[in-house]
Amino acid sequence: MRMVDLIEKKRNGKELSTEEVNFIVEGYTKGDIPDYQMSAWTMAVYFQGMTEQERADLTMAMVHSGDTIDLSAINGIKVDKHSTGGVGDTTTLVLGPLVAAVGVPVAKMSGRGLGHTGGTIDKLESVEGFHVEIENDEFIRLVNENKIAVIGQSGNLTPADKKLYSLRDVTATVNSIPLIASSIMSKKIAAGADAIVLDVKTGAGAFMKTLDDSRDLAQAMVNIGNNVGRKTMAVISDMSQPLGFAIGNALEVKEAIDTLKGEGPDDLTELCLSLGSNMVVLAEKASSIEEAKGMLIEAMKDGSALEAFKVFLKAQGGDDSVVDQPEKLPQAKYIFELEAKEDGYVSEIVADEIGTAAMLLGAGRATKESEIDLAVGLMLRKKIGDSVKKGESLATIYANQENVDEVKEKLYSNISISKNKVEAPTLIHEEVHFNK
Amino acid sequence: MRMVDLIEKKRNGKELSTEEVNFIVEGYTKGDIPDYQMSAWTMAVYFQGMTEQERADLTMAMVHSGDTIDLSAINGIKVDKHSTGGVGDTTTLVLGPLVAAVGVPVAKMSGRGLGHTGGTIDKLESVEGFHVEIENDEFIRLVNENKIAVIGQSGNLTPADKKLYSLRDVTATVNSIPLIASSIMSKKIAAGADAIVLDVKTGAGAFMKTLDDSRDLAQAMVNIGNNVGRKTMAVISDMSQPLGFAIGNALEVKEAIDTLKGEGPDDLTELCLSLGSNMVVLAEKASSIEEAKGMLIEAMKDGSALEAFKVFLKAQGGDDSVVDQPEKLPQAKYIFELEAKEDGYVSEIVADEIGTAAMLLGAGRATKESEIDLAVGLMLRKKIGDSVKKGESLATIYANQENVDEVKEKLYSNISISKNKVEAPTLIHEEVHFNK
Repeated sequence: MRMVDLIEKKRNGKELSTEEVNFIVEGYTKGDIPDYQMSAWTMAVYFQGMTEQERADLTMAMVHSGDTIDLSAINGIKVDKHSTGGVGDTTTLVLGPLVAAVGVPVAKMSGRGLGHTGGTIDKLESVEGFHVEIENDEFIRLVNENKIAVIGQSGNLTPADKKLYSLRDVTATVNSIPLIASSIMSKKIAAGADAIVLDVKTGAGAFMKTLDDSRDLAQAMVNIGNNVGRKTMAVISDMSQPLGFAIGNALEVKEAIDTLKGEGPDDLTELCLSLGSNMVVLAEKASSIEEAKGMLIEAMKDGSALEAFKVFLKAQGGDDSVVDQPEKLPQAKYIFELEAKEDGYVSEIVADEIGTAAMLLGAGRATKESEIDLAVGLMLRKKIGDSVKKGESLATIYANQENVDEVKEKLYSNISISKNKVEAPTLIHEEVHFNK
Repeated sequence: MRMVDLIEKKRNGKELSTEEVNFIVEGYTKGDIPDYQMSAWTMAVYFQGMTEQERADLTMAMVHSGDTIDLSAINGIKVDKHSTGGVGDTTTLVLGPLVAAVGVPVAKMSGRGLGHTGGTIDKLESVEGFHVEIENDEFIRLVNENKIAVIGQSGNLTPADKKLYSLRDVTATVNSIPLIASSIMSKKIAAGADAIVLDVKTGAGAFMKTLDDSRDLAQAMVNIGNNVGRKTMAVISDMSQPLGFAIGNALEVKEAIDTLKGEGPDDLTELCLSLGSNMVVLAEKASSIEEAKGMLIEAMKDGSALEAFKVFLKAQGGDDSVVDQPEKLPQAKYIFELEAKEDGYVSEIVADEIGTAAMLLGAGRATKESEIDLAVGLMLRKKIGDSVKKGESLATIYANQENVDEVKEKLYSNISISKNKVEAPTLIHEEVHFNK
């Protein structure tokens, strides 16, 4: 088999066999296939797409390119959740304890990552003493006992995907749905998920700006998952503005606590119930979405969700008293209000620019080496559609610096106020299921 | 400027500016742009094509990537001819002396090359003593004096094209008309041509198998030439069967001598008159094709074409007596006839397979290191449309080996005989001129 022939085959719109896809992924991972052939192939994929079978083959070839996590010692169906990424997305912090409380095992491998705020681990490290440096055996024991544990990333998962992603990034081939979908799904499957709930964001603050593109990506991922034997579904949710109010690490932990008590922002609560009830159904802990949703609402009301969070924090060395005394979380030195300059209705909150404002405060990493300030960030006080009076706060800025002029300027230029009434955006656009 | 942005721009079907094309070609030649970005870009070009301006820019950027030949010391308009390549193509050997005889300066840089037979220099070296190792000054003096000289390739011409071609070859991006056209035209222009006549082959034995593809390639090259200030036209000629009768180095020299005397094969003669008269007109030695053609026919008749060949050979150390005594050319030891196995009409002569048969005899190079046998080759005795009787010769095999079974087998399986009458293929399909 010669790579040049497989490039030509894809270029001509023909379907590659499983053997051919494996040849490409194995050869590229080992270094037998050079970058210049792989980039020509990915550009051909950009134009010609991939069939369902090719997508499934590519995903599994990337899964098998490195280590895979064996979660078989954990009782029950392990359901993972993945979000395509947005601003102020506190869903992971809420969903873990929430579904654990109704018996769904949550065995989460998490990272630090780049972005507007830290990754899940950074956020959890706002809780004093909490750590993810636990042994595999301990991790599995904790999930079996408490239904929830988080461990740091270890092992060499999907090296083919890492190598390919770096190449796509410099060859203008990132933006290909089959390649994006295979990349995400390979990581989830290598991390041991039996079933997967996807939160595909759509709108100005998301990677996919239009509903059509988001639907295509969601369907691609859902089909890959089901085609390789992992029950998978997706929810397409709004990212035209940040989700919830908090953007910042400790601030999001506080918001998660509120939400677990049933006192969180409406949009965050609604999305967590939607994603969570699908997780519960896929884990076979309920036979319908309605039943699952009822269980989750009950877990918020009766305190069992909050209790699951406490148990989880304590089991990994965290000070669980923060749950009842959130003032023990890292606190910023300075608090500023962003006062509205006019009366009207909030018509736009440009999510990624708001995220960048939080990063300017120190909430996120611009590069791998950046230090995160867990205390700082933003609390939105208004969302799209809300009416506002001149002088009212649009957002609270939590800073460890005295001068936040640059941050204020960025916020003002990315929160628009209209004289006319504005509709709040739809939060959940649709669910996407396997479509053979 | 970043290459990744230029890949994306081309991927999205946008036109690159002159500055951007220069950035790509210069960066790639210097090694600042890596192969993996260049191959992604060429694949994007494969799908999105290039505008007229981009093609002209790419051509000139490749011309300027290395040395260029300065022929300004040669009087008159230097017209070069280029063929896209076929089997048994003796036109270059004929055209040089033919147009030189009517005053068109022929300053040819030539190579050895791979293929069914040797390159022009190999063929000319069938003439004892002939050599191309002459100084530039001498080369120019000879062209001014005799109107014709051939020099070996020297200097670092179009290194960008060489590097890009090697990359395209292993990334399935050879087959892109803008890239093929720019590659050919950059080499001709770097070699100093003022005007260019292109012989674009079409049919089973050509790179372009269909008339449509050949027309597209011809038009692309003609437009590039004219857009960069070189008068250029193309003739689309048949390569469904080999041109002329001879395939082999000394055999083609003999055939060229016959043709210069007006006694060559009909198809070779017709094509040389067509290409030649266009060269004469572009060189402004005649004001119409009819006038030019008349001059060339006269040069064949009155012996001046043959005389030009003699003068040319002698000037470069060759034994010009071969022109009158072609038996002095290298002769093969063994001669075999390929006898027809049945009565009928020749319906197919698969050109490249016939070429491969000649290469099996030793007439061409399979690799750069192969030694060529100048004496061996094939003389076709029948062409498509000819009637043939069982036992008549279809071709004569000139060999320096006793066993030619493999060659015979290849020839038999690639020369078809039909019971029904067959039309001879059209030799010259059309001319292609600048189309703004």
